[in-house]
Amino acid sequence: MNFSSDNVTGVCPEIAAAVNGANKGPAMPYGADDATSNVETAIKKLFQCEADVFLLSTGTAANVLALSVLCPPYGSIYCHPKAHIEIDECGGPEFYTGGAKLVLLPDRAGKISANDLAEALKNEHGDIHHVKPAVVSLTQTGETGAVYSIDEIKAITDIAHKHNMKVHMDGARFANAVVALGCSAAETSCKAGVDILSFGASKNGAFAAEAVVIFTPGLAKDFAYRRKRGGHLFSKMRFLAAQFEAYLKDDLWLKTARHANDCMDTLAQGLSEIEDVEVLLPPDANMLFARLPNRMITDLRAKGFAFYDWPGEDRSTIRLVTAFNTNKEDCVSFAREVREISKLHYEDP
Amino acid sequence: MNFSSDNVTGVCPEIAAAVNGANKGPAMPYGADDATSNVETAIKKLFQCEADVFLLSTGTAANVLALSVLCPPYGSIYCHPKAHIEIDECGGPEFYTGGAKLVLLPDRAGKISANDLAEALKNEHGDIHHVKPAVVSLTQTGETGAVYSIDEIKAITDIAHKHNMKVHMDGARFANAVVALGCSAAETSCKAGVDILSFGASKNGAFAAEAVVIFTPGLAKDFAYRRKRGGHLFSKMRFLAAQFEAYLKDDLWLKTARHANDCMDTLAQGLSEIEDVEVLLPPDANMLFARLPNRMITDLRAKGFAFYDWPGEDRSTIRLVTAFNTNKEDCVSFAREVREISKLHYEDP
Amino acid sequence: MNFSSDNVTGVCPEIAAAVNGANKGPAMPYGADDATSNVETAIKKLFQCEADVFLLSTGTAANVLALSVLCPPYGSIYCHPKAHIEIDECGGPEFYTGGAKLVLLPDRAGKISANDLAEALKNEHGDIHHVKPAVVSLTQTGETGAVYSIDEIKAITDIAHKHNMKVHMDGARFANAVVALGCSAAETSCKAGVDILSFGASKNGAFAAEAVVIFTPGLAKDFAYRRKRGGHLFSKMRFLAAQFEAYLKDDLWLKTARHANDCMDTLAQGLSEIEDVEVLLPPDANMLFARLPNRMITDLRAKGFAFYDWPGEDRSTIRLVTAFNTNKEDCVSFAREVREISKLHYEDP
Amino acid sequence: MNFSSDNVTGVCPEIAAAVNGANKGPAMPYGADDATSNVETAIKKLFQCEADVFLLSTGTAANVLALSVLCPPYGSIYCHPKAHIEIDECGGPEFYTGGAKLVLLPDRAGKISANDLAEALKNEHGDIHHVKPAVVSLTQTGETGAVYSIDEIKAITDIAHKHNMKVHMDGARFANAVVALGCSAAETSCKAGVDILSFGASKNGAFAAEAVVIFTPGLAKDFAYRRKRGGHLFSKMRFLAAQFEAYLKDDLWLKTARHANDCMDTLAQGLSEIEDVEVLLPPDANMLFARLPNRMITDLRAKGFAFYDWPGEDRSTIRLVTAFNTNKEDCVSFAREVREISKLHYEDP
Repeated sequence: MNFSSDNVTGVCPEIAAAVNGANKGPAMPYGADDATSNVETAIKKLFQCEADVFLLSTGTAANVLALSVLCPPYGSIYCHPKAHIEIDECGGPEFYTGGAKLVLLPDRAGKISANDLAEALKNEHGDIHHVKPAVVSLTQTGETGAVYSIDEIKAITDIAHKHNMKVHMDGARFANAVVALGCSAAETSCKAGVDILSFGASKNGAFAAEAVVIFTPGLAKDFAYRRKRGGHLFSKMRFLAAQFEAYLKDDLWLKTARHANDCMDTLAQGLSEIEDVEVLLPPDANMLFARLPNRMITDLRAKGFAFYDWPGEDRSTIRLVTAFNTNKEDCVSFAREVREISKLHYEDP
Repeated sequence: MNFSSDNVTGVCPEIAAAVNGANKGPAMPYGADDATSNVETAIKKLFQCEADVFLLSTGTAANVLALSVLCPPYGSIYCHPKAHIEIDECGGPEFYTGGAKLVLLPDRAGKISANDLAEALKNEHGDIHHVKPAVVSLTQTGETGAVYSIDEIKAITDIAHKHNMKVHMDGARFANAVVALGCSAAETSCKAGVDILSFGASKNGAFAAEAVVIFTPGLAKDFAYRRKRGGHLFSKMRFLAAQFEAYLKDDLWLKTARHANDCMDTLAQGLSEIEDVEVLLPPDANMLFARLPNRMITDLRAKGFAFYDWPGEDRSTIRLVTAFNTNKEDCVSFAREVREISKLHYEDP
Repeated sequence: MNFSSDNVTGVCPEIAAAVNGANKGPAMPYGADDATSNVETAIKKLFQCEADVFLLSTGTAANVLALSVLCPPYGSIYCHPKAHIEIDECGGPEFYTGGAKLVLLPDRAGKISANDLAEALKNEHGDIHHVKPAVVSLTQTGETGAVYSIDEIKAITDIAHKHNMKVHMDGARFANAVVALGCSAAETSCKAGVDILSFGASKNGAFAAEAVVIFTPGLAKDFAYRRKRGGHLFSKMRFLAAQFEAYLKDDLWLKTARHANDCMDTLAQGLSEIEDVEVLLPPDANMLFARLPNRMITDLRAKGFAFYDWPGEDRSTIRLVTAFNTNKEDCVSFAREVREISKLHYEDP
Repeated sequence: MNFSSDNVTGVCPEIAAAVNGANKGPAMPYGADDATSNVETAIKKLFQCEADVFLLSTGTAANVLALSVLCPPYGSIYCHPKAHIEIDECGGPEFYTGGAKLVLLPDRAGKISANDLAEALKNEHGDIHHVKPAVVSLTQTGETGAVYSIDEIKAITDIAHKHNMKVHMDGARFANAVVALGCSAAETSCKAGVDILSFGASKNGAFAAEAVVIFTPGLAKDFAYRRKRGGHLFSKMRFLAAQFEAYLKDDLWLKTARHANDCMDTLAQGLSEIEDVEVLLPPDANMLFARLPNRMITDLRAKGFAFYDWPGEDRSTIRLVTAFNTNKEDCVSFAREVREISKLHYEDP
């Protein structure tokens, strides 16, 4: 009954088993082992192209290192006002790029838009008094649960490339977006013009495993040096690799994400029929924001449900996140409780 | 039969079991879980003082973050020419400090000396044209296997503090040093004047777990921000904590280190009686450097032994490292093979 | 007839003479000369307190170095969306602070407001996932010509200090603000709660001279190191000092600024009576933004007047800046020309 | 009678006159003025190639910005242990490169040697655990007064380029070296394989003027952004340009340097015949280091001579520097005084 985040969960059994399985005999360190090599092959196959692949253990590390090879110190990175790189990485992008600037585009239902990007770039003429537009970063699935359509991504990458900018995709919840779109991994990333992807597994059942997938050739060597000096090169790399091997094997990553998305559907449908509950954005993937009367929130907490909230005067915003191991019954019962509490409030105001 | 490094090993069973055990139910992320809190308590108890504790996953991350809170961008860090922070972190200290400078003291049998430090500091008068001496970093166990005595550490920390400098200890192999000295963890660190310790577990049986232990009050908040923006704050922190809980429980960390040191004793004694083999430094802990004729090295590799070497013309330097899971029989047989090869060479030159 | 900027001007005769006068005999380098010492004394006297003073040659250097001693790498700096530090220093603040973040407050008639600052800080609770609010930077005179009243400054510094933040004032046009307010230098800076001031002279008649005045004790040593490594410590410092000596002598700096402000008054009064010309903000000091029909702009250029513009479809925004050596007749004739052009357009549409 | 440094001098009359001459009417800021354009043309002509030219005001700024476009954050810069970039810039190169490392080559009579460089690079194989060799920086004239022959430079640049490294020349005293070698400016820089030159004027008669001359194409845009964010883009650039115009006009720069070198010849010849005075290195240009009995040093100071010294027990090392405006009579009389003091001491021990 914990909808706080997909990072309060433990680890998917298949992934835990793989890590245990990798604990046999010696293996060359720092990625010179077989498992790492196998994962690189598997990821290239998944994206159907000659990518460079780097394993990491946190999503922030993946994002900031990806940005560090795309953006010079005097460059700028265009992103959503709620982007993880802007809000939740304590200035990591600024640190890893040597002092680049994040420029915030307007929020359009949890996404950035190609039009706003084009508008913002209109007045940039390479004047050296300003930072130089270098990167667009978009989050798929977005921080408020929205999923970009393939066309929306293409429109953004087109404009970026026209301005000699590169495109980074923060895919901490990439799996949930791929499931939501019903497309291939490549279609919503490299084939849509993304240059570099933070491909997350940690929120979708791994211990701590992320892969930076570099589609644009020529950035790998630079990345390797930067990963090392960032303190992100694991000696016993096989244990990161084992997580990803299991993650990709037999499409485990899509199964776990599908389960999370399905749970969210149940939750969303349950909530949508209830008076007094305002679902703020269509929950495209595994995350939902809703506004509720504070009394209801108190009651739900009392029933044992856990979630984050942003308190307001009479009504507050809550966030619900489902994960690979969410119990679907919990979703049903959450919706039921909300409904009953809602009735109570109305019958006895 | 692999003496390459203590990072080619897998994971100690007790630690693997603890990680599996931690994979139950939800837990608050980012260190707000119980396991992390327990580890902090255990480490304070171990060092018998009110330290601040931060869990990390790589030794480089521990070192560079530790240095970043001790050294201003315009400062300098005095260390050994072979220090990991100088040679093996790809400029990580320079990156995390915002451009500090590493100043190299002379190699004295694998260590730095208080005298050399005092001498080097004599001509520093706070001239703003130079970087400002801010930190001394020493490695316990050192990169070539030497262990500092408690008095040697005290002499160095005394001089450092007299010059308003702080002392960092790189303890990637701290356990092996504590075992070698037969002292307590506190005696060779905080009680000897060390301000901040990188307390390693990865090389001694963990998956990927290090703790930065801050003895000097007032640095914790700064460290927390820097860890986050460095991309080193784990969401599922309980799995780092679980490793450390098992590591410290029933002195597992000392048992594993003792085994490694014992294996090295066996190896060293075996080698010391053999003509043509020059052991370069007394192997205080679990690492040994020796110079051998190249023919012997070729023969040993053919027998299936693995180790790193630094090739020379007729003779080369090899490095042997033992670990928590080294088979003592392998040590005996390695020494035996060396002896037999040596005889062969002498009988049939 | 050039209203482009106060940096297209040459140098005030008194300052040029002082620099020539300083070119006599040897003088100790790097600020150990008498002139530098004299300037420090004069500036302390001007601000009626024990400030630390550092001479520099560009306004950007003054701003970024000032911010670098106030803001940690993981900190944030609140400022106006058009602040020079945000728009015109190519990421210098991010560079010098080691990657801090600039947070933009709403534009309130060319200024930031205490209310908006308080609102923005409400949700900051020291969460290490976010950058830490560390500095408020305000520009006096602002980039669009607005001057903060003393009360407005006090309201902002009060809130900043309540949140343990420091206050930086970008005073590239400080003189023009002091003249506009008719107050003392101290009243609109240190006495109003400003911690550190970029005190500009370059735009008001010097070759290239700025002083960073640090009112908050304890930051001087750090500043000295950072100035040196930034490449901003002049060897022949006496020539920077000579500029400032002349600048302050007999209140030259106020006379030059008063002239510039007076010229602007003339310009503004002239323009205010003209149909078709929209003065966008009250020109508090020596800068004015106005919106004019494009035809008028073309005609004014043809008459030989120089100024910057931001082109629009039918009407465009122009910026007029007056300086220490603006010919007041030019202001009169500019206004006259505008009036005549305006009539023409109306009579013959 | 001041031999402390070539930066205790004032400014050459021709240069002072040029600056005064430039103080007429408005001029476009930030280098868009005619004088800057003229200087660029003059410098290209001087070096007989299509260089990019950037004017700056301090030697440290020139060096660190030059290095910042040649060396990635994970790179290393090979230099002399007494190089200005290592000793006298307070970590500026580390700051501007984002944390690169300076690697010190052995001192060979005040220079670095091609052989030592080749030897140092032998063991670098692109291992990402180490920083990547990126730049060799040599100082012409060196910090102890030695001048590299053209062949010595070529040998160094050959090895550097063979290893895909770039070569920076710190030419704070470039003029003195050109005079000493009797060659053209191009012969000892671009034609000898130098990629980027810090071309100094400040120590040779200017107020504060340096030019970075980039011979390798493709680095200019990056440099422009970095200069701006470093706070080194002057608004009233014409006054930097005016200094350089005068500096180059009618070979003024060579005349002033020739005078300084001639004065040093006089000084050196005078000292060479004196017992008890040990000249430490042949004074190739305008700087000399000598070891003298402390009593002599005290007596010389009493006679009014000024110079820096590095005190020893019985004998100390002094440094003598001549400049564009050194009075040759002072050199003669200094040598004469030394001789007389020397006699006194011997006659009356």
